[in-house]
Amino acid sequence: MGYMPYKMDGRRLMLLCDGSFDSHNAKTATGPLKWCPQDVVAVIDSQTAGRDPADIVGFGHGVPIVATLDEAIALGGNQLVIGVANIGGVLPPKFRPVIVEALTRGCDVACGLHEILSEDPQLAALARKHGATIYDLRLVPDVPCATNQARKLPNKRILAVGTDCNVGKMFTTLALTEEFKQRGLDAVFAATGQTGILISGYGYAIDRAISDFAAGIAERLMLDTAAHEYVFVEGQGSIDHPSYSGVTLSLLHGTAPQAMVLCHVHSRSGRRHDEGSPLMPLDELRSLYETMAKPILPAKVVGVSVVTRGLSEADARKELAGIEDKLGLPATDPVRFGVQNVADAVQAFFKK
Amino acid sequence: MGYMPYKMDGRRLMLLCDGSFDSHNAKTATGPLKWCPQDVVAVIDSQTAGRDPADIVGFGHGVPIVATLDEAIALGGNQLVIGVANIGGVLPPKFRPVIVEALTRGCDVACGLHEILSEDPQLAALARKHGATIYDLRLVPDVPCATNQARKLPNKRILAVGTDCNVGKMFTTLALTEEFKQRGLDAVFAATGQTGILISGYGYAIDRAISDFAAGIAERLMLDTAAHEYVFVEGQGSIDHPSYSGVTLSLLHGTAPQAMVLCHVHSRSGRRHDEGSPLMPLDELRSLYETMAKPILPAKVVGVSVVTRGLSEADARKELAGIEDKLGLPATDPVRFGVQNVADAVQAFFKK
Repeated sequence: MGYMPYKMDGRRLMLLCDGSFDSHNAKTATGPLKWCPQDVVAVIDSQTAGRDPADIVGFGHGVPIVATLDEAIALGGNQLVIGVANIGGVLPPKFRPVIVEALTRGCDVACGLHEILSEDPQLAALARKHGATIYDLRLVPDVPCATNQARKLPNKRILAVGTDCNVGKMFTTLALTEEFKQRGLDAVFAATGQTGILISGYGYAIDRAISDFAAGIAERLMLDTAAHEYVFVEGQGSIDHPSYSGVTLSLLHGTAPQAMVLCHVHSRSGRRHDEGSPLMPLDELRSLYETMAKPILPAKVVGVSVVTRGLSEADARKELAGIEDKLGLPATDPVRFGVQNVADAVQAFFKK
Repeated sequence: MGYMPYKMDGRRLMLLCDGSFDSHNAKTATGPLKWCPQDVVAVIDSQTAGRDPADIVGFGHGVPIVATLDEAIALGGNQLVIGVANIGGVLPPKFRPVIVEALTRGCDVACGLHEILSEDPQLAALARKHGATIYDLRLVPDVPCATNQARKLPNKRILAVGTDCNVGKMFTTLALTEEFKQRGLDAVFAATGQTGILISGYGYAIDRAISDFAAGIAERLMLDTAAHEYVFVEGQGSIDHPSYSGVTLSLLHGTAPQAMVLCHVHSRSGRRHDEGSPLMPLDELRSLYETMAKPILPAKVVGVSVVTRGLSEADARKELAGIEDKLGLPATDPVRFGVQNVADAVQAFFKK
């Protein structure tokens, strides 16, 4: 089978989260709830069925949470989305019967795990039999090794970088893209992960590429989007994360951005998936990203995005002011305060 | 099929290089000629047949170069090695009939390309029919994401890093491993590329790992070899190479070395596979590698290895003295002058 571009036309999403909807791992479900709720028919989660998603994850007000696939299909659902993104990307065994049922009833399935459902003989056969499509969002196309072309493109490329995994890099770039479009500018979001692809319908999951070709995939993404004046690139991992730093550096070098936005979670002191190793201070990380960009194309961090969830509004504003003071850059929490100040900084940077 | 460990027992190698034996791409052939010539029956290269390998690539004096597979089998060959390593790792079409013939005659085939021969239906069927084995040296086992364990291992890990691809990282680590063994020390070579695996019979081709798992493969290599006091890790790419930097950083963070040896080619001013972008100065690269190692485990560059081919002996010694002076570190050309001084520096570093 291999890579197949994702198609968004006519989809009515059912976000399968059973047992994980209130956890960190439900990223593949919370993304669509925030960014394309009009396409979402229901969340499937027996533990929170009947509640409102907005009360649990902050997005998706009014979208029903149901306990079963059957109820979701009754609401008009035609595409089952595997709504979790766990370490290693393995399918939780309890999801399998739901996938089997969905395919049997002719529903498409979209999955962003490393486990490739379209290569599973039983699931592939069911899909064929019932005219359903399995979208493995993590699969990437075959590309050549990177050839250092992105740095020569005349457009403006902005990459989200982070202090860790799961610090709002996708959210920040989506919000900046929307803000730029509202300003009448020609901006595009370039997804580099499965949730971003699900939301925008386009992109490549760079962490799935064979490592020799990871920068090549990032380069391909930049060549695909080169006609747009502003390209906001979803970031991945962090450059000092012992598990994912190679992905982060491939993305930095393959996309050759001129500007970066540094993303952080205020309450995070230790790295995820790493037994709580301490995070590097923001100013040191800024300098590390700029140092590592330089051999390919000099790039500057121009703004900071911080998840302040858990703080009062006053404390959140104090936290942001402290970061602005320390780094000399605008900072915001995009969920609470929008991205106007960081968008201004991006525009100002490119006017120089 | 998937990953299968390489077995060295009873092998009689035939190194297939047709048309490429005198070029940069014959690395997978020159490696065995230097490091395990006792296992090599012949080089197959119609363009240089009859000559001595040592006159062409500097190694393998006395190994016959023959024009055909038939002659190599007549000399006792039982394993065909694809002796080239081109960009992107695609099988040169003219090699295919030779592989078909080898399998038909019951010979094993070892291949380090990204093109996976054991997944080719025709070749796999031939291998089955004639009891031959196809070793795809580039394939890696499934591993979990890295968990930042290597840095906690009590042994001594030395990683070769470079100013570019093809700058002698494998040669340097093999030479250091041999030197340490001659000193009666418990040292092992940890291969990270197909040629290193072919030479030593063990290792993982990190550039083939899915990028999310590349550091995990490097970590696995360190866990496998943890019983040895000194582990010399073959390096890959360079941290500022736009195509391969992600592989390099995954390897650095996944292996968590305490010491590094910086490898360079004296005549190289521009990066390979990158339209001649200039190389970074040695002292800046040293600092970049040490900066990037630090978030996981602080590491020092303790010596420099330089390919001085093309220089007179006097000029080579002058070149090395200049580097020693500039960096304050011992430098050698391991091919011409051995690695004693760099080995001394590694030992001294760990005695501190």
